[in-house]
Amino acid sequence: MLAPLVLDLLGTFFFAISGSLLAARRGFDIIGSLLLGSLTGLGGGVIRDVILGVTPNAFANPVYLAPPVVAAVLVFFLSGTVARLPRTLLVFDGGGLALFCITGTVIALEHGANPIAAGVLGVTTAVGGGLLRDVVANRDPQLFDPHDLYAVPAMLGAALIVVVWSLHGYNPWTEAAVAALVFAFRMLSLRFRWHVPLAAVSRHPA
Amino acid sequence: MLAPLVLDLLGTFFFAISGSLLAARRGFDIIGSLLLGSLTGLGGGVIRDVILGVTPNAFANPVYLAPPVVAAVLVFFLSGTVARLPRTLLVFDGGGLALFCITGTVIALEHGANPIAAGVLGVTTAVGGGLLRDVVANRDPQLFDPHDLYAVPAMLGAALIVVVWSLHGYNPWTEAAVAALVFAFRMLSLRFRWHVPLAAVSRHPA
Amino acid sequence: MLAPLVLDLLGTFFFAISGSLLAARRGFDIIGSLLLGSLTGLGGGVIRDVILGVTPNAFANPVYLAPPVVAAVLVFFLSGTVARLPRTLLVFDGGGLALFCITGTVIALEHGANPIAAGVLGVTTAVGGGLLRDVVANRDPQLFDPHDLYAVPAMLGAALIVVVWSLHGYNPWTEAAVAALVFAFRMLSLRFRWHVPLAAVSRHPA
Repeated sequence: MLAPLVLDLLGTFFFAISGSLLAARRGFDIIGSLLLGSLTGLGGGVIRDVILGVTPNAFANPVYLAPPVVAAVLVFFLSGTVARLPRTLLVFDGGGLALFCITGTVIALEHGANPIAAGVLGVTTAVGGGLLRDVVANRDPQLFDPHDLYAVPAMLGAALIVVVWSLHGYNPWTEAAVAALVFAFRMLSLRFRWHVPLAAVSRHPA
Repeated sequence: MLAPLVLDLLGTFFFAISGSLLAARRGFDIIGSLLLGSLTGLGGGVIRDVILGVTPNAFANPVYLAPPVVAAVLVFFLSGTVARLPRTLLVFDGGGLALFCITGTVIALEHGANPIAAGVLGVTTAVGGGLLRDVVANRDPQLFDPHDLYAVPAMLGAALIVVVWSLHGYNPWTEAAVAALVFAFRMLSLRFRWHVPLAAVSRHPA
Repeated sequence: MLAPLVLDLLGTFFFAISGSLLAARRGFDIIGSLLLGSLTGLGGGVIRDVILGVTPNAFANPVYLAPPVVAAVLVFFLSGTVARLPRTLLVFDGGGLALFCITGTVIALEHGANPIAAGVLGVTTAVGGGLLRDVVANRDPQLFDPHDLYAVPAMLGAALIVVVWSLHGYNPWTEAAVAALVFAFRMLSLRFRWHVPLAAVSRHPA
């Protein structure tokens, strides 16, 4: 389909930027930036491929290592500029989320996963790298921020791709439409602080 | 043997409840509750199956996704009640521990793991989900609480199953006996604050 | 080649010591010491083998469980002495790093990984166990300490092994030379506080 490799590399780049930006904000060094960017950009896909039982793309095809290297270099030289743009990390993270919930689901379907497992693996691909980023950086994961419906756009995107795929309607146009929808949903949810109900309808203190 | 799928789903449910309860206590939203419950309930088994080199149950059989969904819904509606019962999270966690040290060991043995590896994988299955839960929730893992011998009942259960299996004595009755023993051991250890020696016989401050 | 099993077990032992020492410093109990030492000593290799799609050494060969057991027992009895020697944890960690960047790269090459993937897997093996140790112990990973170029010696070692291997020069002598070089580099970097530039050339506060 439409250059899945290109989309996957672009998603890797977006997430790697978010990892390297976090490294810069936490005062890590350039190697830490490269490692955290790599883990963020490649981690979700590696988990997906290990669960699918195939050699992870990042290790089968060395071109996957290019986006994290470019990201670490860009953050190194441009982070002064980038830091003046608010929510930069969130925008890049949202771009990665929109692409990875699609490529993750499609790769799982191509490897014969059942539709439900494919959707779950798409979401895992989309949120896995960011979760690893926050866990190894020792901070509360963005994924669990109750003021932010982080995972919901990825769930919607993965579900749409499963439906479109099963209707034999997966093509570059539907792919692009789902990516745009997920990204717009994510950005609007940040702008208007959309959120979902808390885990418990309780009145007791935490 | 006796409905291993049922026991595995029940263990998944118990651990998922512990994950969703933690999400509720930490103020996560309902999606965070579902994700943390899923990670807790399914994580240990996914690690085991990835190490065994087989498609993880949670992705081969969509029915494994039902317990976390039910757990998140139950916690959403009942957590006010549940919060008034002390140690609820620990009781559910203990139930999952008792079932998973058995099903994890048996699944490893069925896939041809050597007895020692099978026991280690049984313990990994039993403690892995809870460890992932605590790590992604960014808190000190219960597994390392020195006032609590968390892993010991799971080690005992896995070892007993390996012995019973090698003596060709594995059947529903021995299975139920080991599960009851591990659960009772776990509950008594909490009640009477049993613990094991510290990592070091040292007199220096930390 | 020269007893790769022996080198791998020695590296496992060094990392297991670092995990059990951290457990002692954090006040974990003896079981927590065994589990954290096992995760530190075996975790990097398990990640490597899972990515390579082979049964992890630690589960294929029970002898890999011996180093963590010995480490936990040694730390239990000797940590009073060890605690008086400064930087003990760092020395053992450095020994594991030097051995694992070699054995990890070689194992990946032997399983047919491309040279770049093999180098990345060698670094993953070398830094993975320590990263897991710090993540589950809920502390900022040593890997990201900007005052310490932790990963650089492992990257150098893995790159040298890939070069030596592709020149058909891999033998016990080159192996020992690379191990000694990586260990010396690591120790000197700690002694003289060598470091690399930060992730960003920015002047804004974090």
